[in-house]
Amino acid sequence: MRTVYLNGEYIPDTEAKVSIFDRGFLFADAIYEVTLVLDGKLIDFPNHMQRLKRSARELQFPFVPDVDQLLEVHRELIRRNGLVDGQIYIQITRGNALDRDFAFPPADTPGTILMFTQVRTAALDQAMKSGKAVVTMADLRWQRSDIKTVQLLYSSIAKMEAGRKRADDAWLVRDGLITEGTNNNAFIVTKDGRLVTRPLSTDILHGITRKAVLDCAKEMGLEFVERTFSVEEARQAKEAFSTSATTIVAAVTSIDGVVIGDGKPGPVGAKLREIYLRKGLDAAIG
Amino acid sequence: MRTVYLNGEYIPDTEAKVSIFDRGFLFADAIYEVTLVLDGKLIDFPNHMQRLKRSARELQFPFVPDVDQLLEVHRELIRRNGLVDGQIYIQITRGNALDRDFAFPPADTPGTILMFTQVRTAALDQAMKSGKAVVTMADLRWQRSDIKTVQLLYSSIAKMEAGRKRADDAWLVRDGLITEGTNNNAFIVTKDGRLVTRPLSTDILHGITRKAVLDCAKEMGLEFVERTFSVEEARQAKEAFSTSATTIVAAVTSIDGVVIGDGKPGPVGAKLREIYLRKGLDAAIG
Repeated sequence: MRTVYLNGEYIPDTEAKVSIFDRGFLFADAIYEVTLVLDGKLIDFPNHMQRLKRSARELQFPFVPDVDQLLEVHRELIRRNGLVDGQIYIQITRGNALDRDFAFPPADTPGTILMFTQVRTAALDQAMKSGKAVVTMADLRWQRSDIKTVQLLYSSIAKMEAGRKRADDAWLVRDGLITEGTNNNAFIVTKDGRLVTRPLSTDILHGITRKAVLDCAKEMGLEFVERTFSVEEARQAKEAFSTSATTIVAAVTSIDGVVIGDGKPGPVGAKLREIYLRKGLDAAIG
Repeated sequence: MRTVYLNGEYIPDTEAKVSIFDRGFLFADAIYEVTLVLDGKLIDFPNHMQRLKRSARELQFPFVPDVDQLLEVHRELIRRNGLVDGQIYIQITRGNALDRDFAFPPADTPGTILMFTQVRTAALDQAMKSGKAVVTMADLRWQRSDIKTVQLLYSSIAKMEAGRKRADDAWLVRDGLITEGTNNNAFIVTKDGRLVTRPLSTDILHGITRKAVLDCAKEMGLEFVERTFSVEEARQAKEAFSTSATTIVAAVTSIDGVVIGDGKPGPVGAKLREIYLRKGLDAAIG
């Protein structure tokens, strides 16, 4: 039985319930973060909490998440669930509005805060062994994908659609240019060895791992550029991968059925993953 | 104390809770409908249920809502709450997935079904007396606004933003053309007396009241055309209004501060509302 956190209480996951009038349930008025846990320690925690605060600000939540308090809960959940490798999910909603109304509830309505652990599955590391197949798909999400909200229905649909096409994930496309994966940022390595990823904007998530990987690239002396790239350019890349907190760096070995490079996970992604993990573990919070 | 319906049970609204692992809560993976109740009777109920089934189909829900059963619950909620004038909200989610995963849960996962009543407030009829002010705003919603999902965060934000601009609602704009209101369809009457509303597509909700109003226009012998129209054309309209199940027809008397017509609710909207209400009450289900 997993112990989860909900509004100040540690309870069994089967008992964790929210009101049907919670804004998260009726209006998808909620933000979230997922922090990687390795060896019982939190990876990149301060950056995730910084982004959580940014999301709250962008949505004009009338309260600011208290990071110190949230850190204590993260630690307690790791302890209570004996979590070694996995992740902690946190979601904060605008709270229980007691009824349904498009207007925000009164500013003194407390937010709903919940957190739960998930144990790391082998699937998350599989892409670095065998690579993953992605298919491109129109990006129909709302145009503030930089805010990490629970409006994830299209990402979920796109992932299922990718599965039907015998692929592992979808890379989304706006105006012929790749935005990002369904829950990860997209990178390619061009024929001349340059690392390319789309620049930050309201079109993509401001990935914590994306930023860390670019820092690692700098450290490696690897040339990189933040610019948009087309589906065609991605298909012709020497190497491709995605980044996210949970998959870290995940090799992409085919795009729309076109084999990338030699069809095996490439060396640049592998190296970046290695450096990121070393640095991340060094700075991890136990 | 309001009695609500949740998964087969009639319970006090304060006790109605869903799991934090409900797909509606974690992924906004849920559809809804709102049916108008006048004089204790359901207006346009079959059409709302038809759209509910369409939404379920579009999202590949593995189950089909049973309309006869849902009608019984609607009736029972009206009875238990002594509802005379108001509305009934129904939401169906893909169910409790027991954990968080972008992939859909197993197809035998039962959906979560909840319904609650709301009493009609005077605000809903106010626009036909004094008219409402709308401001135009970029339409940043996902590009399947034809599916009635709970991904309503942007509509909520836009309504709040309109309020800050001392307006009552926002009309959303894509590529310079009005799509619709935050939770209603947009109509204008041109200088030469023609009724205009945007044609159905994935960009707008396929409004039940929108369709009924077009039927009424036909009955009135009023010339109408379904075509896109720009912000500029809307501002220069002789008359403007919006339609939704709860506001029925709501006069718009200013757009971005520009007074529409003589600044009073116009005759075309008033007439359409009158006919719609007469027909709707005649066909209402008690």
